Amino acid sequence: MPQLRLALAQVNPTVGDIAGNADRVLRWARHAAEQGAHVVAFPEMVLTGYTVEDLALRRSFVRASRAALEDLAQRLATAGLGDVLVVVGYLDGAADAVPVLGTPAGAPQNAAGLLYRGRVVSRYAKHHLPNYGVFDEYRYFVPGKSLTVARIHGVDVATVICEDIWQDGGPVAAAREAGAGLLLVINGSPYERNKDDVRLDLVRRRAADAGCTLAYVNMIGGQDELVFDGDSIVVGADGTVLARAPQFDEGCLVVDLDLPAATAATDDQASHVESADRGAITITRVALSAEPVARYEPVAAGVAPRLADDAEVYAALVTALRDYAGKNGFESAVLGLSGGIDSALTAVIACDALGAPNVHGVSMPSTYSSEHSRSDAADLAQRTGLQFQTVPIEPMVDAYLSQLKLTGLAEENLQSRVRGTLLMALSNQHGHLVLATGNKSELAVGYSTLYGDSVGGFAPLKDVPKTLVWALARWRNEDAAARGQTPPIPESSISKAPSAELRPGQLDSDSLPPYDVLDDVLENYVEQDRGLEELVDAGFDRELAERVLKLTDTAEYKRRQYPPGPKISLRAFGRDRRLPITNRWTGRTLPRPGEVPPGA
Amino acid sequence: MPQLRLALAQVNPTVGDIAGNADRVLRWARHAAEQGAHVVAFPEMVLTGYTVEDLALRRSFVRASRAALEDLAQRLATAGLGDVLVVVGYLDGAADAVPVLGTPAGAPQNAAGLLYRGRVVSRYAKHHLPNYGVFDEYRYFVPGKSLTVARIHGVDVATVICEDIWQDGGPVAAAREAGAGLLLVINGSPYERNKDDVRLDLVRRRAADAGCTLAYVNMIGGQDELVFDGDSIVVGADGTVLARAPQFDEGCLVVDLDLPAATAATDDQASHVESADRGAITITRVALSAEPVARYEPVAAGVAPRLADDAEVYAALVTALRDYAGKNGFESAVLGLSGGIDSALTAVIACDALGAPNVHGVSMPSTYSSEHSRSDAADLAQRTGLQFQTVPIEPMVDAYLSQLKLTGLAEENLQSRVRGTLLMALSNQHGHLVLATGNKSELAVGYSTLYGDSVGGFAPLKDVPKTLVWALARWRNEDAAARGQTPPIPESSISKAPSAELRPGQLDSDSLPPYDVLDDVLENYVEQDRGLEELVDAGFDRELAERVLKLTDTAEYKRRQYPPGPKISLRAFGRDRRLPITNRWTGRTLPRPGEVPPGA
Repeated sequence: MPQLRLALAQVNPTVGDIAGNADRVLRWARHAAEQGAHVVAFPEMVLTGYTVEDLALRRSFVRASRAALEDLAQRLATAGLGDVLVVVGYLDGAADAVPVLGTPAGAPQNAAGLLYRGRVVSRYAKHHLPNYGVFDEYRYFVPGKSLTVARIHGVDVATVICEDIWQDGGPVAAAREAGAGLLLVINGSPYERNKDDVRLDLVRRRAADAGCTLAYVNMIGGQDELVFDGDSIVVGADGTVLARAPQFDEGCLVVDLDLPAATAATDDQASHVESADRGAITITRVALSAEPVARYEPVAAGVAPRLADDAEVYAALVTALRDYAGKNGFESAVLGLSGGIDSALTAVIACDALGAPNVHGVSMPSTYSSEHSRSDAADLAQRTGLQFQTVPIEPMVDAYLSQLKLTGLAEENLQSRVRGTLLMALSNQHGHLVLATGNKSELAVGYSTLYGDSVGGFAPLKDVPKTLVWALARWRNEDAAARGQTPPIPESSISKAPSAELRPGQLDSDSLPPYDVLDDVLENYVEQDRGLEELVDAGFDRELAERVLKLTDTAEYKRRQYPPGPKISLRAFGRDRRLPITNRWTGRTLPRPGEVPPGA
Repeated sequence: MPQLRLALAQVNPTVGDIAGNADRVLRWARHAAEQGAHVVAFPEMVLTGYTVEDLALRRSFVRASRAALEDLAQRLATAGLGDVLVVVGYLDGAADAVPVLGTPAGAPQNAAGLLYRGRVVSRYAKHHLPNYGVFDEYRYFVPGKSLTVARIHGVDVATVICEDIWQDGGPVAAAREAGAGLLLVINGSPYERNKDDVRLDLVRRRAADAGCTLAYVNMIGGQDELVFDGDSIVVGADGTVLARAPQFDEGCLVVDLDLPAATAATDDQASHVESADRGAITITRVALSAEPVARYEPVAAGVAPRLADDAEVYAALVTALRDYAGKNGFESAVLGLSGGIDSALTAVIACDALGAPNVHGVSMPSTYSSEHSRSDAADLAQRTGLQFQTVPIEPMVDAYLSQLKLTGLAEENLQSRVRGTLLMALSNQHGHLVLATGNKSELAVGYSTLYGDSVGGFAPLKDVPKTLVWALARWRNEDAAARGQTPPIPESSISKAPSAELRPGQLDSDSLPPYDVLDDVLENYVEQDRGLEELVDAGFDRELAERVLKLTDTAEYKRRQYPPGPKISLRAFGRDRRLPITNRWTGRTLPRPGEVPPGA
């Protein structure tokens, strides 16, 4: 059987930075070649980053992507890497596309380019376009209808893209018909909790469907609200895991494969395979090199261990923040430290992402702040080494109250907004990224103040339910202890009853159910899409469930104004849940902007 | 030829308010029946409102919509309206849909129900699903594959939905094959500037394609970011306009039609028509009544005059604000009055939408505010009769500056945020909706302060370029003068040079090109999607165009945090332009949150 040394380059591109991404591909291709790789595969849309959203509809951007691909082929050859087959995801499009109503302008395609000896020798466009959850690919792309099989060193290699393997039939079935000896799958597959297990099962099933070895390369890194975990995998046709890359780590997975010798005639330039769902698929064959490489001693490929569940989520949150800051040009962050668990965990994530000296924590006590709020915040600063300062808000609050008569919620919200304004002022003065510290449970029910605690550029815990906030805090402390380090989060921040401290003696439990109950309702309503009657049938108290559902539906306006945050679950708030702002279904109207929900 | 009296009910539903919408349908159906109508058609998705966004994916919501339709059929019969054929848009779905990856959960459909004698006698699902601009229908619906032809009083009536007539072929062609005598088109077609001309041409073309009279009914009213203008139309097969409803006005267009007698055998229950683009279309026939109505004297139908261009845009803005407030339970609004043109026009729109006594204008002068800022704001209040108060911001600004050392942009932004916090406090205390007063030109280039002048629940001018702000202000004043009323906007607010007044002597022109030039660049870049080179080729100064393009690309974060506002153009900011937040294509990074762009 012919041998092939395959490198899967699990890299971290930046959306829109075509020049930087091309440099990154060149750098990692060189690295792979130095390791003796014959084929190097990069992730989906690596050249433009993923997702480019409406940039895909801009002709000049499509042109820039196409030109960069051609240029990259030449640069690879000039760098002496021409004989390596380099597979690169990019944005394609037709310069002369006739506008068709209902078809994206310029007919863009989510494509893979095969670069070899200075040329783009083949292009493949994704067949299956996901249009659910965070994906909007019907808006941006027209589907491909062909499959390329490239013969390199005597092996027939077929390439497909991401969603192509999540749906039955189509190009995977065509790869089997075409007799492919290796199926390459290039991906921009966002992280979700526990998705790595699903992914492994899927990859195994599709290897069996294709009847050949399958190599899956995924990007890593944070990009706006998405986090990519890498987790590139190579499995044999029988499902054996031959190699697996670490999660959340940029790098190159090199694996030696024994693959079946190609037998199809390569002058058979355009055969067709009938696909059950999408009509005929044209198979295009490209002959690059027929001769197998001389036999060599294979190197052992690694199978990286999986992170435990909490460690995995924590790594996703750190990666998301590090890249959001880095890709947007921020080196430092600022956040309010209340002494509570949300701001404590956010601060520790920030320290791990940016380095403690670049994290600025501000204690902003009011007349209602408890002594432990201040001392817990100071304790956190001391444990982590972050920059700490205290700015009492009383002078500002008093100045407003001297001008306006404010009571109740208006006065509570005022305190929160004075803090938001202080953080934004520090951001503007010093260039820090402001971090919002709200969690998913609060966001769901609108337990926050618009333009108050919700200000900022990024919200690390936006998709983390409160019960998971506690679990991650405990895990982070235990992990530190196990490494012989100081646990960063003060125990009392974890154990005390949550409070917004906007009026004397206020507790979250005055307005909301206990967080374990709340998170249980939200899991059923938001993640599992169960309706009220189903919740009641499942044993939830009707009055409680009704209240949570109404709060959740009517908090959509606040969620829209919240900063972006990393998506770690199937149904994060933001792009993948889009409720109308006006929603009378629940019989309630939009809360007045900025209200925290009224007390129980 | 058989006669038919047709009523097009151009009504204003509320998203999510199924019960309220059903009541509305019943009320208008009764009204139409009182006028002797034989057929009454309501808009697309009238029962749920349009667009319901992710509510479409919620099983309990789909069930509620289906149940409401059945219930409505019975209520119509009980009310003595059973012999009137009532066509109602609603959300359909399959209770037993098998989950298919890539297909919306529950297989929802954008459907029309035909209600007659207490039953839903037929259901039609939209074939062509728009997935561009503000539309995401591939996310929410599965397309229909059949066409219903209902025989009523001896006339064969086919029903299709909105996008079905914007694309060639499909059910319109099938209606001709089926020998329909009347093609009903029910719509949720959002307003855009000058779309009424496009719509009339389209309706005429499709009447010719279908070979019969075409009746087009559209909803009216504001719904979140969309505005529906009504503009229901009936044209003959030869393109003659037989009736046309007013724009932005809820009501019922009644028209008497002479239509060809149906000839097809109605026991031919399921013939098929081949469609070029989407496979075979099944034609289902429903026989309701074969006998034509006894001949009667037709009444003359009206053709309402069109509004002039500025009047039309102004009506859209007033409608949008009135309904956003009303549908969300606000009776009053508050906004900052700077003496400038944006806040002046916003205030006048608010007075027209909500009544001057419900509009609260706040002058919030700083030490940098000019005397004319205060006097122009007071003059506006006096001319319009809105509620006016003055709250100087110096005490609050001084309190912040006593705690933090702030300079430059940080100090400028602080002033803006103190004003934002004041408006939010008034909102929380009194229940007013806060209006943001920024225009599209500012939004494009990020000339605003995050959490400062951008706070609020609704932004009436969000899609209005600055040059159009001036034009609308002049039009409104002239229109008032022509009616013998006081022009509401002080002349000096229109004529003076725009300034943010955040530092001594500051003018917009310090940081931005003149607005006529800026709007010209934005029209080409944003609306026409021309790239830099195309702009330079068209004669724009390269340095200026580069600067505007960079500002526009990098202001995406601020635009995302901006309140919703009515869409009046092809490419509004918001749902129909979704740029990635991180976008290095232009070689610039995200501005620090909250910055106004640096001076030139």
